[in-house]
Amino acid sequence: MKDCIFCKIIQGDIPCIKVYENDRVFAFMDINPVADGHTLIIPKAHAENIFEIPADDLAAIHVASKRIADGIRKALNTTGIACLQLNGKGVNQIVMHYHLHLIPRRPGSPELPMTKWELVSGNMTRIKEIGEKIASAVK
Amino acid sequence: MKDCIFCKIIQGDIPCIKVYENDRVFAFMDINPVADGHTLIIPKAHAENIFEIPADDLAAIHVASKRIADGIRKALNTTGIACLQLNGKGVNQIVMHYHLHLIPRRPGSPELPMTKWELVSGNMTRIKEIGEKIASAVK
Repeated sequence: MKDCIFCKIIQGDIPCIKVYENDRVFAFMDINPVADGHTLIIPKAHAENIFEIPADDLAAIHVASKRIADGIRKALNTTGIACLQLNGKGVNQIVMHYHLHLIPRRPGSPELPMTKWELVSGNMTRIKEIGEKIASAVK
Repeated sequence: MKDCIFCKIIQGDIPCIKVYENDRVFAFMDINPVADGHTLIIPKAHAENIFEIPADDLAAIHVASKRIADGIRKALNTTGIACLQLNGKGVNQIVMHYHLHLIPRRPGSPELPMTKWELVSGNMTRIKEIGEKIASAVK
């Protein structure tokens, strides 16, 4: 969709650190990570949120999320992963293209708010390094 | 699985306020709700989390979650729904049977922590009333 930042990422018009892709799904590193390894999984076909996305794309996203979660665990040796997906302005959905957050946690990780977190740019060198580790661990 | 509270709910050994069921999936009201309409969706076959659950069950859960989210929105006129699913002790997963939280939000809903919230018993009359509304709105 025109003017959708995630559609532009899928099309390669905006660069990203990709970790996985198949015919329906695209996954890449969040550049404002709330934790090391914070990954986003999106459908290639634009859909705003859970109310709009077709069931087939939804299933594909979550089946892919399992493979990516396995990869994150293997790459980063995490003790847990939060899967979070926000729908609608009422939960502070900022980019209006369905996206599932995978947020790895480690011992001592600070608690996070569920819907409103501060967007702080990450260190791109570090994000790239971690993204490459995850990408190569995803089967 | 023996001693799994969610398996006991599915089998009817522990009562619950059910909102939806199909051959793979069971959905019911959280009795410690962090918001009105807080719903849990679980696979009927026991699996601890995203690392263990078979892809077919995972797809079924999330396809069902779309129908239930539609029902919640219709029943409660929410402005947003957070879909949250925690994997592992590192993200404070308490019941070790995969579960997806649907957490509806309304204007003025207070922010919530992502992984650690206080378990406060809800008002069962209110939960039942809301659960019945959601159940009858799920198509």
